[in-house]
Amino acid sequence: MSFQATDPGFEARVRASFGRQAAMKLIGAVLTRVEPGIATVELPYRAELGQQHGFFHGGMVAMIGDAAAGYAAYSLFPADSSVLTVEFKLNLIAPAGGERLVATGRVKKPGRTLTICEFEVVAHKGGSATVCAVGLETLICLAGRPDAPAG
Amino acid sequence: MSFQATDPGFEARVRASFGRQAAMKLIGAVLTRVEPGIATVELPYRAELGQQHGFFHGGMVAMIGDAAAGYAAYSLFPADSSVLTVEFKLNLIAPAGGERLVATGRVKKPGRTLTICEFEVVAHKGGSATVCAVGLETLICLAGRPDAPAG
Amino acid sequence: MSFQATDPGFEARVRASFGRQAAMKLIGAVLTRVEPGIATVELPYRAELGQQHGFFHGGMVAMIGDAAAGYAAYSLFPADSSVLTVEFKLNLIAPAGGERLVATGRVKKPGRTLTICEFEVVAHKGGSATVCAVGLETLICLAGRPDAPAG
Amino acid sequence: MSFQATDPGFEARVRASFGRQAAMKLIGAVLTRVEPGIATVELPYRAELGQQHGFFHGGMVAMIGDAAAGYAAYSLFPADSSVLTVEFKLNLIAPAGGERLVATGRVKKPGRTLTICEFEVVAHKGGSATVCAVGLETLICLAGRPDAPAG
Repeated sequence: MSFQATDPGFEARVRASFGRQAAMKLIGAVLTRVEPGIATVELPYRAELGQQHGFFHGGMVAMIGDAAAGYAAYSLFPADSSVLTVEFKLNLIAPAGGERLVATGRVKKPGRTLTICEFEVVAHKGGSATVCAVGLETLICLAGRPDAPAG
Repeated sequence: MSFQATDPGFEARVRASFGRQAAMKLIGAVLTRVEPGIATVELPYRAELGQQHGFFHGGMVAMIGDAAAGYAAYSLFPADSSVLTVEFKLNLIAPAGGERLVATGRVKKPGRTLTICEFEVVAHKGGSATVCAVGLETLICLAGRPDAPAG
Repeated sequence: MSFQATDPGFEARVRASFGRQAAMKLIGAVLTRVEPGIATVELPYRAELGQQHGFFHGGMVAMIGDAAAGYAAYSLFPADSSVLTVEFKLNLIAPAGGERLVATGRVKKPGRTLTICEFEVVAHKGGSATVCAVGLETLICLAGRPDAPAG
Repeated sequence: MSFQATDPGFEARVRASFGRQAAMKLIGAVLTRVEPGIATVELPYRAELGQQHGFFHGGMVAMIGDAAAGYAAYSLFPADSSVLTVEFKLNLIAPAGGERLVATGRVKKPGRTLTICEFEVVAHKGGSATVCAVGLETLICLAGRPDAPAG
């Protein structure tokens, strides 16, 4: 599926919003790709992100999956809007081990109020890539409530 | 519902496993209550856990909800086992604002292989408490694979 | 939690809407309890509702769970509105065997646009009652679009 | 992704199991495609399957989505096993209107115990096809418990 962003400034808007999320900074997540209806968030491994067996913690997987889905949706929203996660569900399907996680969110169904996204989180280890989580998420558009702080 | 733990050392086992999760340390989450089939994880606010509007990031809500559900399940597992999250779904139903989040997981249906839990995350602000997320989660018991490192 | 319906005619409105659902008639489901924020749908067993081992088919469990959640939400909606299921998730936690299934939906968080419900499906067999499914569901209110046919 | 069925008789086994589900007969669902890791279930419209506005009832959408996912998983299971739905989540993303629904389930991650599937339900109306639901589902393999009645 391919989408057209209604806001020509969508990429800068998405990147600025991601940049304001302290929690993404804390874990070291980076927003790499932003296209209409698609966003990718990457997370390099460090021991502090781990669970007891040295894999990425499942919560980290969820966090970047949710972020990727949210910004995929937000790329299609109007300029003066915010995005909120209504709900998501994910399946952890393989151990999240490796040097780097890459979460990609894609809009499945855009909407004026609700947007539905899918996401996939891939663990990169050496030369190999393994899908470690898949998810389905519902986002809501808060129209007329810009994400940026007033100024 | 009330459950009986089959492992008399369940509480120490659960607390030790939680203590080995670096990611919980990174965000500052604390395991407070551990009873058969119930676990509570608390998260004091600091700006680094926030999203762009100063609330707790939704990923943090998910992370401690998942942890509470996982340890609620693990409390009922045998001594020489590990726990893995198969999947979870959560609804974010109110802004997660305040001084502290409290996530409580409860076993809804224990099982030899799969255990189903519910969780609820409450935001405490001043004297008030608001449920900000509810979730449903499936955990799997890896029998014969102790959580603790060998040695 | 207890709620107040804003539409004094909520019960008649809910029952009329249920009565227009041919699919509920096909399977033989009956709407029993309707209170503000709560609805109960019952399904007596007949062989046609079964899967290959003589239990109620999981799809039947899902169908009445969704219906109970939807009408629990709809009870709190304004008079001139419709309800749509946005999404739901359910866990089937025990075989759905017995003479009768009873699904109860309860509003967890009402809202002007979105309402979040929980549901539980109980299988009644002889004198015993077993929870066979639990679910979490998001409903949307279509304001100004009455459920009843014009005329 | 492409999979190899370990049981050479997988197709006949899947079709026989579907054929024993009375509930599928009641609603008129037909199992069309069966390949390793893929199954398609179709449902022709009749008024009895509707909700109050003449679309397919959401419960019918869920029922055939779940069936398609379950049989996609079961195609990869060993000969002497059964399949049970552990849980599923679906988003209803467009009105399910038309002459026919087509649900396709695909294995995303096969496993000895748990298998994860995605499903999609498409509504066919005139010449057009609209995705009306997407889902994510977890199935469990009951090894050594054949689906067929003893005889």
